[in-house]
Amino acid sequence: MSERTWNVYLAGEIHSDWRDVIAAGVEEAGLPVRLTHPVTDHPASDDCGVEILGPEDVKFWHDNKGAGINAVRTYTLLREADVVVVRFGEKYKQWNAAFDAGQAAALGKALITLHPEEHDHALKEVDRAALAVCREPEQVTRILRYAIRGEL
Amino acid sequence: MSERTWNVYLAGEIHSDWRDVIAAGVEEAGLPVRLTHPVTDHPASDDCGVEILGPEDVKFWHDNKGAGINAVRTYTLLREADVVVVRFGEKYKQWNAAFDAGQAAALGKALITLHPEEHDHALKEVDRAALAVCREPEQVTRILRYAIRGEL
Amino acid sequence: MSERTWNVYLAGEIHSDWRDVIAAGVEEAGLPVRLTHPVTDHPASDDCGVEILGPEDVKFWHDNKGAGINAVRTYTLLREADVVVVRFGEKYKQWNAAFDAGQAAALGKALITLHPEEHDHALKEVDRAALAVCREPEQVTRILRYAIRGEL
Amino acid sequence: MSERTWNVYLAGEIHSDWRDVIAAGVEEAGLPVRLTHPVTDHPASDDCGVEILGPEDVKFWHDNKGAGINAVRTYTLLREADVVVVRFGEKYKQWNAAFDAGQAAALGKALITLHPEEHDHALKEVDRAALAVCREPEQVTRILRYAIRGEL
Amino acid sequence: MSERTWNVYLAGEIHSDWRDVIAAGVEEAGLPVRLTHPVTDHPASDDCGVEILGPEDVKFWHDNKGAGINAVRTYTLLREADVVVVRFGEKYKQWNAAFDAGQAAALGKALITLHPEEHDHALKEVDRAALAVCREPEQVTRILRYAIRGEL
Amino acid sequence: MSERTWNVYLAGEIHSDWRDVIAAGVEEAGLPVRLTHPVTDHPASDDCGVEILGPEDVKFWHDNKGAGINAVRTYTLLREADVVVVRFGEKYKQWNAAFDAGQAAALGKALITLHPEEHDHALKEVDRAALAVCREPEQVTRILRYAIRGEL
Amino acid sequence: MSERTWNVYLAGEIHSDWRDVIAAGVEEAGLPVRLTHPVTDHPASDDCGVEILGPEDVKFWHDNKGAGINAVRTYTLLREADVVVVRFGEKYKQWNAAFDAGQAAALGKALITLHPEEHDHALKEVDRAALAVCREPEQVTRILRYAIRGEL
Amino acid sequence: MSERTWNVYLAGEIHSDWRDVIAAGVEEAGLPVRLTHPVTDHPASDDCGVEILGPEDVKFWHDNKGAGINAVRTYTLLREADVVVVRFGEKYKQWNAAFDAGQAAALGKALITLHPEEHDHALKEVDRAALAVCREPEQVTRILRYAIRGEL
Repeated sequence: MSERTWNVYLAGEIHSDWRDVIAAGVEEAGLPVRLTHPVTDHPASDDCGVEILGPEDVKFWHDNKGAGINAVRTYTLLREADVVVVRFGEKYKQWNAAFDAGQAAALGKALITLHPEEHDHALKEVDRAALAVCREPEQVTRILRYAIRGEL
Repeated sequence: MSERTWNVYLAGEIHSDWRDVIAAGVEEAGLPVRLTHPVTDHPASDDCGVEILGPEDVKFWHDNKGAGINAVRTYTLLREADVVVVRFGEKYKQWNAAFDAGQAAALGKALITLHPEEHDHALKEVDRAALAVCREPEQVTRILRYAIRGEL
Repeated sequence: MSERTWNVYLAGEIHSDWRDVIAAGVEEAGLPVRLTHPVTDHPASDDCGVEILGPEDVKFWHDNKGAGINAVRTYTLLREADVVVVRFGEKYKQWNAAFDAGQAAALGKALITLHPEEHDHALKEVDRAALAVCREPEQVTRILRYAIRGEL
Repeated sequence: MSERTWNVYLAGEIHSDWRDVIAAGVEEAGLPVRLTHPVTDHPASDDCGVEILGPEDVKFWHDNKGAGINAVRTYTLLREADVVVVRFGEKYKQWNAAFDAGQAAALGKALITLHPEEHDHALKEVDRAALAVCREPEQVTRILRYAIRGEL
Repeated sequence: MSERTWNVYLAGEIHSDWRDVIAAGVEEAGLPVRLTHPVTDHPASDDCGVEILGPEDVKFWHDNKGAGINAVRTYTLLREADVVVVRFGEKYKQWNAAFDAGQAAALGKALITLHPEEHDHALKEVDRAALAVCREPEQVTRILRYAIRGEL
Repeated sequence: MSERTWNVYLAGEIHSDWRDVIAAGVEEAGLPVRLTHPVTDHPASDDCGVEILGPEDVKFWHDNKGAGINAVRTYTLLREADVVVVRFGEKYKQWNAAFDAGQAAALGKALITLHPEEHDHALKEVDRAALAVCREPEQVTRILRYAIRGEL
Repeated sequence: MSERTWNVYLAGEIHSDWRDVIAAGVEEAGLPVRLTHPVTDHPASDDCGVEILGPEDVKFWHDNKGAGINAVRTYTLLREADVVVVRFGEKYKQWNAAFDAGQAAALGKALITLHPEEHDHALKEVDRAALAVCREPEQVTRILRYAIRGEL
Repeated sequence: MSERTWNVYLAGEIHSDWRDVIAAGVEEAGLPVRLTHPVTDHPASDDCGVEILGPEDVKFWHDNKGAGINAVRTYTLLREADVVVVRFGEKYKQWNAAFDAGQAAALGKALITLHPEEHDHALKEVDRAALAVCREPEQVTRILRYAIRGEL
């Protein structure tokens, strides 16, 4: 019997290398995990709408078109994930990350958050809905290894 | 045949009087709307967990207990809402608001956002999932009046 | 034990008086039916978006804003309906009507269509998903009377 | 870990080669996409019911039988799609296309519409439920490429 | 706090007075139960389709139209029931009763069957999905009284 | 891109060779179909409960145990089917077949019935919920071939 | 606009007066709560099956019949609850209580547990799924008061 | 056509070798079954939370963290199972097992229980929701063999 594949969606912050750290850890441990994530190329993510569907004079609709196209990807991947990891970094509003966490919670996904302690109070509702609150990406890898192989 | 009651959940910012403005508008128009909302007394909302269930030495668990009890209220009301309005104010992280918006979107609620233009770019994913993006609470009341009575 | 209320959503064509005919029939028969429908004031329906949320230079976004606000009403009412009646008239594209019929079918509503015979071939997929295909609004009233009271 | 397969259902107009354009684009880009679609042989689609299940004297039932058998295919493929693209062409009523769009929306699929600008007003409710509104099939391929590979 | 109303759908056999026996028992016990049922006037049930929607030459379509209109009623009532009672009598095929039982089981309703012992073997799959197998309608009333009031 | 596999569950009558006819047709046409079915060994199906879990003195419980174990199989296969075919033969009550049809309908499966014309009136509700009513198993194969390959 | 009614199901231990304490607290606070619960008369609960449906020689089936009839009540009430409180007392296995908690969690109910500290380790999975872990029934009332009125 | 894989989750008691017995039986019979289970290393299961996420002074939160991480595994595997087997052993409270059974029942899984006769009365509600009640693990293997291959 072949091993099951675990689908893990890595949402949130796109300005540090936390996804690479998790990917390296997953590969090193040889875990049967398919990691997915939103497009992390910031300009592409911002401009994909007008780039593909044509320009807009008004910034709001420029953003609106881009958000629609990004949602084709993110909504599809988030819905089929077993586990959703949401990273909150130190900068920006990151409402997008919290929005993804809310979707994950309502869809009944296993939710894991990843953020520094300083955000604990602001994220208390999100953390309450999560099965684990991590500080470092290595902890996420360890959780996956434990969840999949039972190895601490 | 009696009129149907519309359940409208007002999520998000708790430091301005936007809920009162909507409530006054709803009452003035005589709309059959039941407005619900999270507990807006900030200290009560922060401390309800330890107040009812006993103190915690660690702040994280203090918050965790409070978030659980608030969720008894918010999750129940959000799930039964027809319309969810989420307000993003000018201060604080407000991840909670974005988290509620994510839940509302995943649960298939009619989502309305309410925020100043300056947040447009940061909220583009949330706004994309919304049926209307308002700047002022009076616009929310007008939408409700139109949706319920067909009156502009 | 009080009678149950039947929620019946009347979707589709807005340029003839078919809804009034059904309403009169329901009232005459004293049926416990709550009839709901989209906003049938064509200009209001077209302009509600920019009227409430502010003007748009581009017609596409003018329409987009209006469609969002109308959806607050239609989606809420359609989802809570027991029975959805969709009328296709003799003019216009009426894709909106077919779109509502598709939603009703996927949501598991009891679907009734109402249209002249000349549209039979073009509507065969929609009619196949319907529990009854009517030619005249009086037939809709008779179906409701039979379904609710068992009277032919 | 093998790549995930994206299921994309191409609904709507069957009198131009738009599906071939998308298929060529998908193949050229080497995307892991399984394209599905209704039967596009118009006479077969019209007559499959009576051909397989026996003739009918009345045209309505002739159509009804055919619509049932086509639904075995379309309903199965539409339900398992990640993305549903609906094309509205320049001729015919095309209520079938709008009906499929309504089902896709209610089932929570990522919906993309494809139609010339002249249909914008008539399709405003359908477009409002879509994540992207395309004018040319090449734009659909670009969206898929971006959604799957993150490449603009 | 007002008592909750229990919706109980009485499906199946229409040639004996078992529904009246249950209704009398419910009334005598003063239970807050809304009893619903398919149309039990056999000729009306058979002919409602052609009576309302026009005649058919072919018997199959005569039946098909009637079944559609009856489904407007039965499907709506069955879906909103808390408890579904299905009676199998001594005559006829009664596939309709078993079909309703299958729907009730798949919809997660509390299912009760009511039939003489002689049908036990033929109904073993249906009975396996039921929470109680009754021989007499009085037993159904007793179950309702126990379930609602806790009285044996 | 590999072809999708169609899961087709063949429910109902177990005393004729109709499943073999369909299987032969599917194989001959080379269709990507996985045919599944209940256990068709009548004595095994009747006695599996007591055979595995121990004897019962009372026939009702003998049957009840067997029905439970058969349901482990049938419920799992029926739920994952794309298409459910239900055959009603000329003998026996076959309530089990109608019960499976009811489950299939409520679960939103593409339902096909297969029975001689003499059962039309008794099966009118089941047939109304079906997408096709066949007389011969070869027609089922043709429908599958058309639905999968578009070939008449 | 009338207040919404909160449905609160009180599951678990039936040998102490904890439900009365909660009921008294709810009444004193004037909360719009409908409290429901399983039948708490232990002998009635054990014997309702054979009492209504006839005796069984084998104890297992005696219990099986009773459990079925109790489920008509418990399953209906649990499914419609907004909040499910599960009490674990000091005696007995109480697997029933944990089973109800599992159902409540999977159905997405707001779950509250109530048990002495000595059970903490054995109940850690159940408590993890709960929004609050109480020691005393008065705490449950306070949570309800806070959730409904926002009063600490 | 390749055989379908059956996902079978083995929940409950972790202090005897019952899972090995089932695994050996499944292998011997060559059944296409993927067996999954919670982590059965008791200390790892208890300490995984603090081991990965950092220590806690309070035992309740120590347990809470561990339960969260175990849930990433158990909830994912339980949700994707076709069949859930729950074993109740002779020692400990085993509320966890009953909690898993409750989740399985509410999620509509085919539930099988496995326990000695002495627990029959205490487990009557759980057993009522199960499709089979086994005494020995070999019976579970026989049920799987029968359900998958039709072999007694």
